[in-house]
Amino acid sequence: MATKLSAKEISEKLDVLNALACDGALWKQSGNTITKTFQFKSFIRAFGWMSQIAIWAEKLKHHPEWFNVYNKVEVTLTTHDADGLTELDFSLAEKMEKFK
Amino acid sequence: MATKLSAKEISEKLDVLNALACDGALWKQSGNTITKTFQFKSFIRAFGWMSQIAIWAEKLKHHPEWFNVYNKVEVTLTTHDADGLTELDFSLAEKMEKFK
Repeated sequence: MATKLSAKEISEKLDVLNALACDGALWKQSGNTITKTFQFKSFIRAFGWMSQIAIWAEKLKHHPEWFNVYNKVEVTLTTHDADGLTELDFSLAEKMEKFK
Repeated sequence: MATKLSAKEISEKLDVLNALACDGALWKQSGNTITKTFQFKSFIRAFGWMSQIAIWAEKLKHHPEWFNVYNKVEVTLTTHDADGLTELDFSLAEKMEKFK
């Protein structure tokens, strides 16, 4: 099982993650979750991205909570089993940035 | 532009739509929207269904608001341009039932 990260580890990992975010929108911590709203040029681009991430999510055995309306995707990541944030959340977030 | 449906038309169309829903979960009206939570056997099935609906949404030029977490998809449909519910919402909802 993935290990819950400490506040210091989360802060460090958020910095690394946000250095990858070139769209000016940052990941933010909210309690046991990290969240970000992704904006795309169209629904096709938004859903195309979701499709790539869906396959990665299944591969990582770690799934997002996400809300989509047209070109916008609001993402929330957490690890319920660990009751907190783990490496898995940051691995999936990194894929989200990489494939944007 | 799609025409806003009357309360009577919405009620009739909801009945027809819910007759298609064989999973025991019904569409409900909430103000200017209709909503339903779809449950699937897995994330792969949930996202596979979303992928089919995404293509239909683009084809109908009418897109859902939807929230997915693992095997669950909460859908909200409305027609912002008409400030209400239109044929488009029911056409997309029908596809959602058909491809479930």
